[in-house]
Amino acid sequence: MLKLYYSPGACAMASHFALEEAGVEYELVKIDLRKGEQRTPEYLAINPAGVTPALATDQGVLTENLVIMTHVARASPDAGLTPEEPGFDFDRMQSFSGFLGASLHPAIGAVLFGKPPLEGEARAAALEKALGKYDVVEQHLLRGPWAMGDQYTVADGYLSVFTRWLRQADLLDKDRYPKLNAHLNLVQARPAVVRALHMEGLEPV
Amino acid sequence: MLKLYYSPGACAMASHFALEEAGVEYELVKIDLRKGEQRTPEYLAINPAGVTPALATDQGVLTENLVIMTHVARASPDAGLTPEEPGFDFDRMQSFSGFLGASLHPAIGAVLFGKPPLEGEARAAALEKALGKYDVVEQHLLRGPWAMGDQYTVADGYLSVFTRWLRQADLLDKDRYPKLNAHLNLVQARPAVVRALHMEGLEPV
Ligand SMILES: N[C@@H](CCC(=O)N[C@@H](CS)C(=O)NCC(=O)O)C(=O)O
Ligand SMILES: N[C@@H](CCC(=O)N[C@@H](CS)C(=O)NCC(=O)O)C(=O)O
Repeated sequence: MLKLYYSPGACAMASHFALEEAGVEYELVKIDLRKGEQRTPEYLAINPAGVTPALATDQGVLTENLVIMTHVARASPDAGLTPEEPGFDFDRMQSFSGFLGASLHPAIGAVLFGKPPLEGEARAAALEKALGKYDVVEQHLLRGPWAMGDQYTVADGYLSVFTRWLRQADLLDKDRYPKLNAHLNLVQARPAVVRALHMEGLEPV
Repeated sequence: MLKLYYSPGACAMASHFALEEAGVEYELVKIDLRKGEQRTPEYLAINPAGVTPALATDQGVLTENLVIMTHVARASPDAGLTPEEPGFDFDRMQSFSGFLGASLHPAIGAVLFGKPPLEGEARAAALEKALGKYDVVEQHLLRGPWAMGDQYTVADGYLSVFTRWLRQADLLDKDRYPKLNAHLNLVQARPAVVRALHMEGLEPV
């Protein structure tokens, strides 16, 4: 059975949403980042990078949200959580998720979770850089209503993790990010997403 | 025909290596990052994120090395540049490339190419963090001789971009990184890689 190592509210939510949307059987294992549980020898044996998510499968461990999400989606083709694979639209979805994972996530992560926390001018500069990545999604990448257009895909759950963080920090400005605000509301109205949030002890924001 | 937008010596090299290894027809378009060509309206219309690489295909533009590399590999199955797709080993390769793109690249990029450049303690802290990511690859992820074991895959070309940067900065310590040093030498001995380097005006290091 699939086993997801996650931390409540952290980016592993994207993989958790995919599991709930897919309706496959899985087990959740909580790794408390504030307690440093991602750096125990037991967890490092599962993911040597010391981060969540990690997905244990019958064949071994997978890491990185964009890999875990598509792996899960493939187990449940009827749920239609990705464009057909292999194919150009599938690749385009992965380009989108890749931008979130490699560019937007590190940028906003530095602002919200940097250790030691950024302050003053350094924080302001890092924040403007991060908001610029959200601008790229708002103005160019998000087709609407869903990231890829008419079909909800795992990339939508992924995006919602980062817009959720921004809204929680009171930074998802309604004028600057009208499409991202509407998108987050749509994602958080999905029953599978609400179920996953509840399992993590969270509510839509 | 495929068209790769690249900057000499930058991470787009990974996609360039994949194109040469695959032996497909393609055109190269140089985007000079130092001249800011990634931010011209013409290039932003191709990749709104304002970074290289981007791959123009008959069906549209793809971004992110881990997507471009596998798209190219799929066009040339006989070259055997990835494990079978879809499949667990393919996903495992993408977990590896995902770590490079989302974790190692941003960490070393901040040290080597940060604007404004990091200095003093901030640079030292960022460097130690980045080197820790290379430690994860050296000690855990790189199976040897190739990243995934016996088969050369596009992930090897990707890794070599970042070990090359480290060696050029005199930071790919032989004692700390014996496997990464040997791996970089192996990659740079491949004819396709040498051809791609030459096309970018570069040599093995
Ligand atoms: N690119 C990775 C990012 C993983 C990641 O950075 N996870 C964070 C939580 S959002 C983490 O576990 N951080 C713990 C730490 O850095 O100590 C993915 O998509 O899976
Ligand atoms: N995750 C992206 C990274 C792309 C990226 O950051 N490219 C750098 C060169 S290594 C770039 O174009 N930087 C130009 C800039 O930031 O202005 C990928 O793998 O394609």
